[in-house]
This record gives sequence, C-alpha cells and structure tokens, in this order.
Amino acid sequence: MKKSKVVIIGGGFGGGFAAKYLHKYAAAEIEVELISQRNYFVFQPLLPEIASGTLNAQDAVTPLRLMLPQVKIRLAEVKSIDFAQKVITVLQGRKTVVVQVPYDHVVIATGQVTDLSMFPGFTQHSMTMNDLADAQRLRNHVIQCLELADITLNAQLKKAALTFVVAGGGFSGVETMGELVEMIRRTLHHYPNIAPEEIKPILIQRGDRLLPEMQPELSEYAVQSLIRAGVEVRLKTGISSATAMSLATQDGQSIQCMTTVTTIGNGPSGFLRSLDLQLVKGKIPVNANLEVVDLDNVWALGDAALIPMEANGKLTDLSTYAPPTAQFAVREAQFLAKNILAKVTGQSLQHFHYRPLGALASLGSYRAVATIFGFSLTGLLAWIMWRGLYIGMLPGFSTRLRVALNWLFDYFMPRTIVQMAHAESPGTDYIHYAKGEVVFLPGEVIQGFYTVVTGSFVMEVVDDSGQCLLKEYLPGDHWGERILQKEIATTGKVVAKEDGVVLVLKSEDFKRLCAEFKPLQDYFASLGEDRYSSNAQ
Amino acid sequence: MKKSKVVIIGGGFGGGFAAKYLHKYAAAEIEVELISQRNYFVFQPLLPEIASGTLNAQDAVTPLRLMLPQVKIRLAEVKSIDFAQKVITVLQGRKTVVVQVPYDHVVIATGQVTDLSMFPGFTQHSMTMNDLADAQRLRNHVIQCLELADITLNAQLKKAALTFVVAGGGFSGVETMGELVEMIRRTLHHYPNIAPEEIKPILIQRGDRLLPEMQPELSEYAVQSLIRAGVEVRLKTGISSATAMSLATQDGQSIQCMTTVTTIGNGPSGFLRSLDLQLVKGKIPVNANLEVVDLDNVWALGDAALIPMEANGKLTDLSTYAPPTAQFAVREAQFLAKNILAKVTGQSLQHFHYRPLGALASLGSYRAVATIFGFSLTGLLAWIMWRGLYIGMLPGFSTRLRVALNWLFDYFMPRTIVQMAHAESPGTDYIHYAKGEVVFLPGEVIQGFYTVVTGSFVMEVVDDSGQCLLKEYLPGDHWGERILQKEIATTGKVVAKEDGVVLVLKSEDFKRLCAEFKPLQDYFASLGEDRYSSNAQ
Repeated sequence: MKKSKVVIIGGGFGGGFAAKYLHKYAAAEIEVELISQRNYFVFQPLLPEIASGTLNAQDAVTPLRLMLPQVKIRLAEVKSIDFAQKVITVLQGRKTVVVQVPYDHVVIATGQVTDLSMFPGFTQHSMTMNDLADAQRLRNHVIQCLELADITLNAQLKKAALTFVVAGGGFSGVETMGELVEMIRRTLHHYPNIAPEEIKPILIQRGDRLLPEMQPELSEYAVQSLIRAGVEVRLKTGISSATAMSLATQDGQSIQCMTTVTTIGNGPSGFLRSLDLQLVKGKIPVNANLEVVDLDNVWALGDAALIPMEANGKLTDLSTYAPPTAQFAVREAQFLAKNILAKVTGQSLQHFHYRPLGALASLGSYRAVATIFGFSLTGLLAWIMWRGLYIGMLPGFSTRLRVALNWLFDYFMPRTIVQMAHAESPGTDYIHYAKGEVVFLPGEVIQGFYTVVTGSFVMEVVDDSGQCLLKEYLPGDHWGERILQKEIATTGKVVAKEDGVVLVLKSEDFKRLCAEFKPLQDYFASLGEDRYSSNAQ
Repeated sequence: MKKSKVVIIGGGFGGGFAAKYLHKYAAAEIEVELISQRNYFVFQPLLPEIASGTLNAQDAVTPLRLMLPQVKIRLAEVKSIDFAQKVITVLQGRKTVVVQVPYDHVVIATGQVTDLSMFPGFTQHSMTMNDLADAQRLRNHVIQCLELADITLNAQLKKAALTFVVAGGGFSGVETMGELVEMIRRTLHHYPNIAPEEIKPILIQRGDRLLPEMQPELSEYAVQSLIRAGVEVRLKTGISSATAMSLATQDGQSIQCMTTVTTIGNGPSGFLRSLDLQLVKGKIPVNANLEVVDLDNVWALGDAALIPMEANGKLTDLSTYAPPTAQFAVREAQFLAKNILAKVTGQSLQHFHYRPLGALASLGSYRAVATIFGFSLTGLLAWIMWRGLYIGMLPGFSTRLRVALNWLFDYFMPRTIVQMAHAESPGTDYIHYAKGEVVFLPGEVIQGFYTVVTGSFVMEVVDDSGQCLLKEYLPGDHWGERILQKEIATTGKVVAKEDGVVLVLKSEDFKRLCAEFKPLQDYFASLGEDRYSSNAQ
C-alpha cells in the first residue's frame, strides 16, 4: 500500500507536535512533510528569558530536523493551497522559485500574528514577543537605551530612554515585564550615570486585573510582586497610539518612552486571510474532529483553528472553544494525529477534549504564580515548579540540557550586556551578473524594481501566438514596475547579455514610494500600457 | 592637578588595551574615555568558531563596560576630529544627535576595513570575517544553503548551494575554511538528501603557499590537512569578480557557488580617509613613539597606524613596520599608555619595539600549526596550545569561563543548525509623530528623504537676518532631498503640527536611486534652488 502523504504547514506547537505524533502513531501508513519558514521550533514561553539574556537564543530553540529526524522538512513560504487539486504552492530558496507540493492530507498550523493596526503607530513603534527575532530585538533595544541614558546630557531624552512600557497583562506581558526588570537590575552597575530610581517600568493592562486566566488572589500576588520590583502597574488602561518617543493611553494620558512592548492584539495572518476559507473570529472553523468545515482532508489546529470544546460529550464550562495555549496545541496535535490515522485506515474519528493541568506564570526574581490541579502556589516554590515543567516540555534532550546549563550558569555568571550589531540592511542592492546569468525565469517572483547601472540585459517573452519577443535593457532602463503594481508573476525571462550591474529596490519599498510620493506615481502612470504591447515584460 | 583627558577612538585590540593600560599605569594622572560603535570587545581570531557554531556569539565577546569598568564608555560614531581645537564630533543615540567631546590627547585605534572595490561584485556578493555580524551572517547563510540543497530538484542550483569558496590563505582564511568544513561535517546527518561527496569547499590563495607568515613545512602541513578534510586548495590563483551565483578567478576560470568568503583586501575606513591626515599605505604614519607625525597630542596604534619597528635601536630584520596582528596591537597599547603618561608628566618617551612570541593557526578537526619561540608544532598538540593561548588572551574572567564551557560542551553536544531569522529590514519606514513632537532640530543629521502621508508638519528656519521663516508640509509634500544631496546638516527645525505620519526613505537608498534612476534625478533637478530661497529647508 502506498503511504498517504500528510503535509503540515507550520512548525510551532501545533504543527511540530502533529508531525511528531503522526510519525509515532502512523509511520507505517503515513509519510509526513513539514513546511516551515524557520528551521527551528521555538518554545514561546521562554522568549522573555531570551530577551533578558537568561538564556542564549540558540540554546533555547530546537532545530526542526533534530526534533523530527524522520520527517521531511521543507524550509519555504507557502503562497497558496489548491484544495481541489490537493497541491500547495511554495516559494523556496531565495524566495524566488515556485514549487508545487502535492498532498493527500494537509494540516494548517500557522498560528496567529500580532495585528495592532487599530492602534496608530503601534505596528511601527512597538515591539512584539512572538518569535526569536522579537526577543533579540527587545534585548538589543533595551541595552541601546541604557547606553544612551548613560551618556546623554538631555534630561528629557534620558527619561524617555529609561521608561519601559509593556502593554498587556496576560502571561506574556507579565513574564516579559518580570524578566525585563530583573535584567536591568542585574546590569545597571555597568552604567555609572544611571541611578536605580531613574528606571521606570510600566505595565499597562486593559482589564481590572493581571493574569485574568488565573484566580484573583494570584493576580493580586502578581501585582504586589511587580510593584515590589519597582514596576508601576496601570490596570483598566487601554492603549491608544504610539510614536518612537511616546505612548498614549485611552484615558488621554501620554507617556514619554522609547520602549514599548505589546503582547496583545492577535489576528489572522495574511496567509490565513488569503486562503479561500470563511474565517470565524479570525480563525479557521473546524469540527470537533479537527477537520476544516466543508473541505476534504484539510485539518487545522493550534492558534489558527477555532476548535469547539467538549468534555464528557458536552460543551465544557471553561469555554466554548479551545484556548490558544501551548498545552492545548500539544494535546490537539495528539488527537489530530490519531484522527488522520483513523481516516486513512477507515476507523472512526474522536472528538477533541482536554482538561488542562493548570497554569503558570513567572514574575522574575525567582518568583512565580501557579495553579496545578486546582491548587494555587506562589513564590519560590511555584517558580521552581515553573522551571521544572518547562524543561520537561522542551523538545529534544540536547535542548533541555542546554537550557538547564544556561539556567545554572545564570546564577553565578554576570549577565552580559553585549548589544549585537544589527546592521540595518538598505532597501536597495547593487546586484552583479556575469554574462549569461539568468536574472529571472517566467513564473518566478520578482525581487523588486530593477534599474540597469552597467552592461546590458535581454528580456525574452513568448506571446500568445508563440512568437518570441526580445527587448534589450541598457544603463538607465528599468523593469519590474508593472509586475509589482499588478502583483503578478513574471512572464518573461531576463538574462545578462554581458557582465552588468543592476540596482534593485525591494518590492515593499517600491510600493510604498509609489503610494506616497506622487512624482513617482505620475512617472509610471505616464509610461502607460502601450509600452508593453509589443515587448511585454 | 586636573587630570589629562585621553579619548580613545575604537574598542578593538589597540583601543581596548590602550584604555586598560592607561587606567592601570596612570589612573591618578589621566581620565580615559573610549568611543566605540559597538559596546563589546570582539576577539577576532575566534570569529571562525562563532561562524561554525563552536562558540555562542554572546559568549565569545566581552562587553567593554565589563572589560574596562573604570573607563567612560561612549557608544557613538565619530564624524570628525578638530585637531586644532582638540574636539571630537560624534553622533550618538539614534545616530541623529551631534555631540562635541573635548580631549587633551586623542588615540586613533579604528583599525582597517575590508575594501574589495577593485574586484567587481565582491563588495556585494562576498562575505567578510571582521566582526560578529559577519560570523553570524556566514553561519546563517551556510545553513540556508544546506536547507535549500536538501529540498531543491534543480541539480545546478544544488551544486552551487554546496560549493563554499574562501578567498585568502592567511590565518583568517585557513581558520575559516577549517571551521566551515568541520561544521558541515558535523551537521550533514540532518540533511538526508545531501551526500558528503557533494560538498565542495574550495580555498583560493593568490600566493604559492598558505600561511605565508609561517615556515614552509607548516604551510605544507596545512595544505595536506585541509585536503584530507575534503578541501580543494587552489594556490597561485587570484580572484577577479563575483555574482550571487558565481566567482571568477584571474586565470579565467568560473566557479558556480552561492557562498564566497573573502579574508583579504584591507584598506583604510571612510573615517580614516575623512581625517585631515596624509595616509601612507592606507594607514596613519606615526613616529616610533606612536605619535602621529606633525600633530600634537594625537596618537595612533593597531591596524590603523603605520608604525616603524625597531629592535635594539635599529630596524628589525622582520619588517620595517609593525604587522597588523592582535599580538602587536596589545604590545603597542602598552607602549602607548606609558608614552602618554610620560608626556603628561614630562618624562622621556620610549620607542616601540617587540619580538613576537610566535604564530598559531587552527585547521579545524583538532589540528593546528604553531611556531613558538622558533619551534614548530603541528597536529593535536599545537591545537591544544592554540586553545590554551586564546583562553589566556581573552579579556575578562567571565568571558574565559564562557568560552571554556562552550568548548567543553561542543565535545559531547550535537552542533545546532538553528538559522536565526534575520528579518530583512526595508529601506523605508512609516514614522508616526504625536502633535508637538520634534522631527529634527537644527544641526542634527537627517535620517533620509521624508514624504508626508497624513497630518501636517511645520518647518521653522531662522535666516541670516534673524527672521523666522515658517513652511507647512501637508500630505504629498516632501523634504530632505537638498540636505541629502549636498550632505549638509539640517538648518531648520521640523515639528508635527498635529498627529501625523511620514514615509522615510533611508539616506543611502535615496542617494542610490537618485544616482541610477534618471526620472527621479530629473524631478529633483526641476525643483531647482529657487524653492528654497524664501523658505530654506
């Protein structure tokens, strides 16, 4: 019997563990391929510790190929899914080559993204905590603020540099604030011109308590613990807008600050919205078997899926839908793997149900709050339990060992304040081509707007009648504007006729400039469509 | 007595150790400030090990504030030095605010940069190994090539992805190649579709042997060791040009490859060239006391300085000038500190002299070559000595411990293949301003070319007669082009009149587009100078 091919899109808790369980339960019946844009699994609850430097970034994540040695891993970006033909279209390599991946079953596990577009300026000026890059960005930014505060003679600038705002009082917000404060406390001795009392950490929460998923007494403990650590906790405060130097709240207050981290505002990714699916609450509605409603052999789980919850055959009293947590995603992955196997082998499918074990939140400085099997715990004991549980949940023995060693050394080693150079990459690149090298082939995705600097390039297009049209591009000539503006794939082939150089403006930058800078818009409009009638590009 | 203020520019071996020795010898007489663009000291000989993942990036560098706890550290970029007024102009913070730093003595220790402009395409398509960011870039790039080679069905692309070229057969090139090969060997089991024999590492050296600074028999050992590890060594081969997919050598050969690392081609930095100094061989000529020729209280050391060598009062037989190595820079720093103290206290100055202890090069896979006090060593023993010596040379106990632990764990832990997400930052940014916020002040450095998207902004300029001119900018209006094209500082002040958004195109991208894309050039030329006569910007 030929194995069924299951393609999983997404390598987070839902997708990663679905691949793991599918291989565990059904290696004989099912071939698994996982498509991910990152080649590693990131244990998101540890991101605040990476941001604070407790953990090294590389040590806290697990390469997918290590976590899933028997699974085919494809590092690529999914562009579309043809549910009728059962084919996934991906961009791989340098994000130009389009490849078709066929499947028997597809699992959508792409999670959600932070969508702050309803708060002006937040998308541009606030940091998030969803991925490794976010944690590293926050860490570097905080160190940069301390370095600036230490040398500046401008009092107002110093104050803004030392005000650190976290918006969101859930698990991620509280843990980020706890770690941030501990990091600053442990590194401040390096900055002789900053007094501890000049540091202003502010936690903003829209609701009337922190950690609303936990018992009220634990919320109160968290508030008191953060206040003792020097944090100003503002409850019942919504965010309104942000700039590089300030944050406005809905009650009309303005906070001068250079650092804003936002842990709220989840929404569907552009990919999810691009699928031909009716989203509900920004998620893909699935039935209790985790099958996407109205489609065959399409499954979804994790934060991307809206999963009805049952317990003992009826809706639970906790919530109508499964909450977007790691614990649930792992459990969903287990059900999903069993249900796909059942479907492939003609067995009956099981409804998803799960009763979570509890909840934990670290507050920094060796304190945490926990609810386990209905019991509440606070302080050092909860914190030890928090660390033990996380070590247990990490995939891969070597990752566990690395994290444990990082934690051990963090006790007796000073925190480092290395600010990693992030070279800001420009929006333009000078690209060299040797004679005969291909710039792009028909059907590829164009990288931006091209202007020839030196040499000559030839575009070859085969028109509807099968005739081959050639057009030469010399220094000063340009191509790509029509493809970018219409968001279409290339129809022609461009080759370097001799050694040459082009200047490429990245697609996103080209579109922004055309949208906002009218002279550019007018110039391209003036070229009109005629230009392409005989030598289509 | 008021202390003399010594400002050191550069935090590498020369600058970092000069600060250390100045504090050690002359804390009572001298106040030291160090200006650096990075907040850490990087031990460059370890960069190949960071690239290969033997060492964690954060663990292998030492924060300057940890290395030099008593020294004032200023994270800033130096724009110019006024030798007559004894003032240094720096850009600090977000690289916009100009600050003046006065000095009694200034030490220039900014090193050299890689200048590959004589080899077309190398600046754009070849990686270097000078800084932490380079090591991380190489690491991520190699992993990306392996990921692509594992999934692509295009044989030509796969071959290019698995061909890794290092140009330069000195210490840096040989060590980079050794580490690269070991990294690939230890991670290849994760990539089921790549056979070991498909990996093509090629080392290109212009001269007729590797490691020309060492004895011929050690050069030969290095060649044989690399060949055994699967490396193709091409001697007497110069590089000619590069593209993203190929490299051409001077003998007319072309190599299809996606990875090129170049460890040759040192030249003066833009900063060094901008100083009002007559450079010789791309360096600052100093006398044997390390004083810059024809200037008072200006010193230079390390790779940026051309230092005449003496031994026993006469030129050594080794070389006329001190070679650009870490060993020499540290020794120069010691002489420099003593000479500055001598100058401040009216003592006589000493001529620089030094006899190096030896030279070491790691070949990867537990092998090295070494010359110590005239003796030659090869293999495991040399390799152990190499590690021991490097640990000893690292500044800071905690850095030594971190590196030692990294080395220890590297024996029994698998190499990780985590490819860190480098989010490519665009060349344009939408920046939000709240009413009343300042976009820039007179004298600041402009960040790019601004187009107003929403809101309104007011520019205020005080003209020569003291009259204040106001100009309002509404959506679609733009500013900054004249300042960028003329490379001048802002003369006006821009403030948000109400909440608003601007699109900013980074300076470098603006200049490149104006240079290559004629319609844009024409548009700005058509605006002419008149536009600014009454409301100068």
